[in-house]
Amino acid sequence: MAKNKKSALNVQKGISDSDISNTSSILNIQQKRKTQPTADELIDGILKGNITDLSRAITLVESTNREHLQKANAIIQGCLSHANKSIRIGITGVPGVGKSTFIETFGKLLTTSGKKVAVLAVDPSSSLTKGSILGDKTRMEDLVRDDNAFIRPSASGESLGGVARKTRETIILCEAAGFDTIIIETVGVGQNEIAVHSMVDFFLLLKLAGAGDELQGIKRGIIEMADAIAINKADGENQNAAKLAKIEFNRALHLYPAKDSNWLPKVVVCSALENEGIYNIWNMIKDYEHSMKSSQYFYTKRNEQNKFWLTQTIEERLKSNFFQNAKIKIELSKQLQLIEENKTTPFAAADVLLNL
Amino acid sequence: MAKNKKSALNVQKGISDSDISNTSSILNIQQKRKTQPTADELIDGILKGNITDLSRAITLVESTNREHLQKANAIIQGCLSHANKSIRIGITGVPGVGKSTFIETFGKLLTTSGKKVAVLAVDPSSSLTKGSILGDKTRMEDLVRDDNAFIRPSASGESLGGVARKTRETIILCEAAGFDTIIIETVGVGQNEIAVHSMVDFFLLLKLAGAGDELQGIKRGIIEMADAIAINKADGENQNAAKLAKIEFNRALHLYPAKDSNWLPKVVVCSALENEGIYNIWNMIKDYEHSMKSSQYFYTKRNEQNKFWLTQTIEERLKSNFFQNAKIKIELSKQLQLIEENKTTPFAAADVLLNL
Repeated sequence: MAKNKKSALNVQKGISDSDISNTSSILNIQQKRKTQPTADELIDGILKGNITDLSRAITLVESTNREHLQKANAIIQGCLSHANKSIRIGITGVPGVGKSTFIETFGKLLTTSGKKVAVLAVDPSSSLTKGSILGDKTRMEDLVRDDNAFIRPSASGESLGGVARKTRETIILCEAAGFDTIIIETVGVGQNEIAVHSMVDFFLLLKLAGAGDELQGIKRGIIEMADAIAINKADGENQNAAKLAKIEFNRALHLYPAKDSNWLPKVVVCSALENEGIYNIWNMIKDYEHSMKSSQYFYTKRNEQNKFWLTQTIEERLKSNFFQNAKIKIELSKQLQLIEENKTTPFAAADVLLNL
Repeated sequence: MAKNKKSALNVQKGISDSDISNTSSILNIQQKRKTQPTADELIDGILKGNITDLSRAITLVESTNREHLQKANAIIQGCLSHANKSIRIGITGVPGVGKSTFIETFGKLLTTSGKKVAVLAVDPSSSLTKGSILGDKTRMEDLVRDDNAFIRPSASGESLGGVARKTRETIILCEAAGFDTIIIETVGVGQNEIAVHSMVDFFLLLKLAGAGDELQGIKRGIIEMADAIAINKADGENQNAAKLAKIEFNRALHLYPAKDSNWLPKVVVCSALENEGIYNIWNMIKDYEHSMKSSQYFYTKRNEQNKFWLTQTIEERLKSNFFQNAKIKIELSKQLQLIEENKTTPFAAADVLLNL
């Protein structure tokens, strides 16, 4: 009984079936088979804000089954004109920086002020770190139980391009379901940030203060993508270190040229644990939205992002079609060998491969 | 007579025919027609260090004529096993930083210590700034006259990919002709630095000191590509500002993670005009070469660069074949319109285009 209750809650909060124990999962599947809703029914449900329908549609978006994807495309098509009305916020930071606590505190602040918040995660490596993502959800206890919040972990074990498509389409579905604030979390490894940066309006980098450490391990280009850096865990004995880190990051930001948006990236300190400085961050994001909408940059950026994903998708597909071709694979390794032995140039090798 | 003398000098120093006045140019062409050497003759000449043959081969590499390119490929093929034995140094910096004077002083230092120095330029936009490149050559007066130096401006009005291929192949020819130090200059605009960075062993960024200005206008990612930053024009009243700039840049470098090479980028001050600190830079580059060869990273990097150019060339060609297709062009603009009107997603649009 207790198990069933938890399972129902999980479905409502967007946890996929695989997270649930086998017994209840089989029950769910049997039940679903009887009542599998049509695309139109799901669109209808989503537009009415039905969370179960939203979750079902996202599961279709995440599926690798051809039929599911066709259905997913129809649903997205039906939702598109109702989407695009939220603010999309990307949040990144290394593990341990307190992302979950931050999103919990930040999300609660928003829902209590009447916002509807969807939290998505981009993590192509999640097949390896599945534990940590499920862990994150249990660390967002309050938000998970909040009717105005929707938390969805990312599909696991996928290529970045694949996860990006799924996340972008999930954003559309969430927006159509009435979520006006979309938070996209990423774990701060690999190319995730670039992908997330290219699908959000505002990009927030969470950092920790710590003697000198704040300048270490900054990923290439990450600072220049940030619209703001929030130094988290600025509480107790950390407060002085956080202030020093703020100065240091301000100096670092100063090294970069002006952004296309003309927005000057801010450095703020906060403590998600003690709910300090969080409201300040939300105000900053509202300022950003207001000023970017006034200058029309908000819309220009979204349009640019769409173009980016269009070209990105095409290029990725052209490349994978080429390099996954069996004949190419064989010839490529031959040519690489010849290059290594100094018997051909990369350009001559490219000619050989392209003429195959 | 004086004109002919100059023209002969120019040919010897690698100036292409188009730089020479019409009359003598026609004379040259007529003479060439009679004596057009075969690929094997050119290979032979290059391996003997004949500068006229080297220049002729580079002209073939730069040609857009199919027959010329076939000949060029044969020559490169013949030179390949004699190449790869130089140190390749990339030098970048904004206009006005004193690149020409620096290369003149640096190059003379090398030739007087027995080195053979080739100076190439990567500048895809040179059709627009042709004047400045020719100007550069006159600003390298001593080096132009030096028998141990070879200066070759880049082919103009080309795509970056095209210029990169030509430059990479010119490097091979110069190395086969016995040049042991290859300097590749770029003007510090656009994507040039990335291309140059991907074809050199050591990447030097020239900067100017000036109250606060040293932190302005730094192109994204340029600092993290540099193996060293040389603050030039550290002479006269500039000396203090240069020292301050050095501190500031050291701090900036500190913000980046360790390089794959484990080399710690250095900041140095110099005055090319007064020949101060130039020898220090050469010593630093020798240290770099020594330490990278000990760790084998030198060879790993060159191999990685070859792979980069192989993939880069293939990807560029796949893309241009796709996007230059007439049917694609028409459908692409339709799909972009639909995306802008929120009637399709980038992913659905990509599917339509790829299925054409």
